Amino acid sequence: MSIDKWNELADIKDELAARDWFPGTSGNLSIKVNNEPLSFYVTASGVDKRKRTEKDFLLVDQWGQSIEQTSLKPSAETLLHAQVYRLTDAGCSLHVHTIDNNLISDMYGDTGAVTFRGNELIKAFNIWEEDGELTIPIVRNFGDIPKLSQAVADVIKPETRAVLIRNHGITVWGRDGLEAKKHLEALEFLFSFHVKQLLLTQHVQAIKGGMNYGNIEIS
Amino acid sequence: MSIDKWNELADIKDELAARDWFPGTSGNLSIKVNNEPLSFYVTASGVDKRKRTEKDFLLVDQWGQSIEQTSLKPSAETLLHAQVYRLTDAGCSLHVHTIDNNLISDMYGDTGAVTFRGNELIKAFNIWEEDGELTIPIVRNFGDIPKLSQAVADVIKPETRAVLIRNHGITVWGRDGLEAKKHLEALEFLFSFHVKQLLLTQHVQAIKGGMNYGNIEIS
Amino acid sequence: MSIDKWNELADIKDELAARDWFPGTSGNLSIKVNNEPLSFYVTASGVDKRKRTEKDFLLVDQWGQSIEQTSLKPSAETLLHAQVYRLTDAGCSLHVHTIDNNLISDMYGDTGAVTFRGNELIKAFNIWEEDGELTIPIVRNFGDIPKLSQAVADVIKPETRAVLIRNHGITVWGRDGLEAKKHLEALEFLFSFHVKQLLLTQHVQAIKGGMNYGNIEIS
Amino acid sequence: MSIDKWNELADIKDELAARDWFPGTSGNLSIKVNNEPLSFYVTASGVDKRKRTEKDFLLVDQWGQSIEQTSLKPSAETLLHAQVYRLTDAGCSLHVHTIDNNLISDMYGDTGAVTFRGNELIKAFNIWEEDGELTIPIVRNFGDIPKLSQAVADVIKPETRAVLIRNHGITVWGRDGLEAKKHLEALEFLFSFHVKQLLLTQHVQAIKGGMNYGNIEIS
Repeated sequence: MSIDKWNELADIKDELAARDWFPGTSGNLSIKVNNEPLSFYVTASGVDKRKRTEKDFLLVDQWGQSIEQTSLKPSAETLLHAQVYRLTDAGCSLHVHTIDNNLISDMYGDTGAVTFRGNELIKAFNIWEEDGELTIPIVRNFGDIPKLSQAVADVIKPETRAVLIRNHGITVWGRDGLEAKKHLEALEFLFSFHVKQLLLTQHVQAIKGGMNYGNIEIS
Repeated sequence: MSIDKWNELADIKDELAARDWFPGTSGNLSIKVNNEPLSFYVTASGVDKRKRTEKDFLLVDQWGQSIEQTSLKPSAETLLHAQVYRLTDAGCSLHVHTIDNNLISDMYGDTGAVTFRGNELIKAFNIWEEDGELTIPIVRNFGDIPKLSQAVADVIKPETRAVLIRNHGITVWGRDGLEAKKHLEALEFLFSFHVKQLLLTQHVQAIKGGMNYGNIEIS
Repeated sequence: MSIDKWNELADIKDELAARDWFPGTSGNLSIKVNNEPLSFYVTASGVDKRKRTEKDFLLVDQWGQSIEQTSLKPSAETLLHAQVYRLTDAGCSLHVHTIDNNLISDMYGDTGAVTFRGNELIKAFNIWEEDGELTIPIVRNFGDIPKLSQAVADVIKPETRAVLIRNHGITVWGRDGLEAKKHLEALEFLFSFHVKQLLLTQHVQAIKGGMNYGNIEIS
Repeated sequence: MSIDKWNELADIKDELAARDWFPGTSGNLSIKVNNEPLSFYVTASGVDKRKRTEKDFLLVDQWGQSIEQTSLKPSAETLLHAQVYRLTDAGCSLHVHTIDNNLISDMYGDTGAVTFRGNELIKAFNIWEEDGELTIPIVRNFGDIPKLSQAVADVIKPETRAVLIRNHGITVWGRDGLEAKKHLEALEFLFSFHVKQLLLTQHVQAIKGGMNYGNIEIS
């Protein structure tokens, strides 16, 4: 059972690493092993996430302290994962840095949240209304980790599935590894779509106003 | 024969998954097994398309109902595939979400179609005239699947090879898996080319007006 | 010897296919086997370039006619390769479609050529002066292949290593497979660099004028 | 020991090659084998960095001269690596060309440096202050390699971890291969983030001024 959890997490790590979503050894991920008392596997600090080894993860408790005999140190941001497990029904939690999640986090950072509407991928969050919407809170990037994890805890509501940290990536979770990965992929799609739509804004307005561009004409 | 079809579809799934064209477990694909009565393999609902397993596809009939003894549920959008097989000579049908097909679908959504001219890749659709053109209809993204599949059916003409659903990706088909994939790749190229050409519009006009940019000069 | 050539070409095909430089079964490639009389392997028509099989290439003569007992048809654009071997010292010739080579071909198409200066990758073409420059001619995309291959032949000078066809990709060559690939990669880099530099133009001018952007300041 | 160093370098080469960070056989990399007298493995000249062979690297001394019986020629830019080992505590040095490091090098080339602030990835350089900053010097791209390596040497201060060469990529180092790769990945992230943030500038200002774009609204 515990080895299954390890492998579930290692498979996700391999996939996200292949997408280069852990630049500069950044990012960390965890999977819950037990509820009461809480224990979860979390990435060891400073490890190359492109390789798959026995030193990738270690088991920690609700305070983020190792509960194994090991020389490994848990990721510096383990407390954020602990908060997610404390406050939600998450079984797996992923923290990655991408260009587009950093752009969105900075662009909407002053407002404290970004809300998406009108894209099919919102259904990845079990929101099925045609006009359903999805809000992701954004917190300030405190250098002090207990302060940062408290800031994240403060914005988690029952329906929250992810929190952006300004210029510091995203933390996303789901009931298991597959759902956490589904939420992460859907959000990165929404972020990338929005960024590119912004870049196209003036051109789209011209198209809707009836102009033709390049080799393409509206029929 | 049936196992060949399964493998043909599984190979295409692997290739599209490696390109990340199924973000957040979105997208679905199917391959026809029999004509009269119609039966086809279609992706099971909620499965991780990055892995290849015996549970990836199940056999369904013309109403999208499973005709196997299985606990698998067909993809929620199976009816769209059934419409494509009912109305065309398709042997394989692919539905994927990409950033650029979403951008195009929204940009030209009000017009109901987008038409391409003047790029060599239009020949991928067996259009060989130097000034040949290719039109892709765009339908509204109804949340109700029978309504959505009827909207798709309503815009299919004899020459149609693909339909965009606004902010909900594309459905593309071909007589077999290779042709369906050929059509999909060619369209995604045309979409990405058009989006980037729009972004360059004002710069291109300056170049054609005789300005020089960066380190590059016109000879 | 002949099998070595086949494998050299198949390795290059695998690598370019993994980069998605053959969208929609477009593109073709060849490698010279004999000088007098000319014979070369060229991609068979309509084959999936993502797979590696015994049917990927066939041997043709200087008129692009098969000189094997085979049911395979040579690529429709085989004559372009024959012209390259007739007019240059090429041992390998590559034809691919990318978004950025299409953009450059259209942007500078009216001018008939694009010239690059001031980037280190120009040295990939054995041009070592600090202010060396590299010119790529651009021809019109005739639908008639003999006419198109004549248009390509007409712009080849002794120093030419590549020709752009407007909205129809690039043909690049080198004395062997490695050099052809080197030229292709260097050109695609120069194209992508130029396209992105154009997009940044106004921002770069602002930076050079002393403005600060985002989180970055000039020291 | 020496074979371990070789494999450490070959693994990094494979990973960077898979990202296409050696376009057109550009780029080179090295790993230190001995301190006094200095010796290090460096890439052989003109080799295809996509393949892994026994001819990938050769051992050279502090003057960049081969100290093996070999027909291989060290990379033309070996002297730059020698300078890095002479002036710093580097154990591994990487030189790559990417679109975004070329863009940054040209954009800020006149100023002679670029400084980053306010992104979490600055911590990859062991800078832990909330307002920490990271400066990368930029030197002119002299065609003469001894002159270029002197120019690089002239801008290296104790805290320097990388130098940009204008329109000629970046040289980055670390105490070992993992740290060098960490620095390189973090810098490429910062470069790409900055370039895209520049492209979004006017749109971001509009958002901060209260406008809504596309399908996304600020909550």
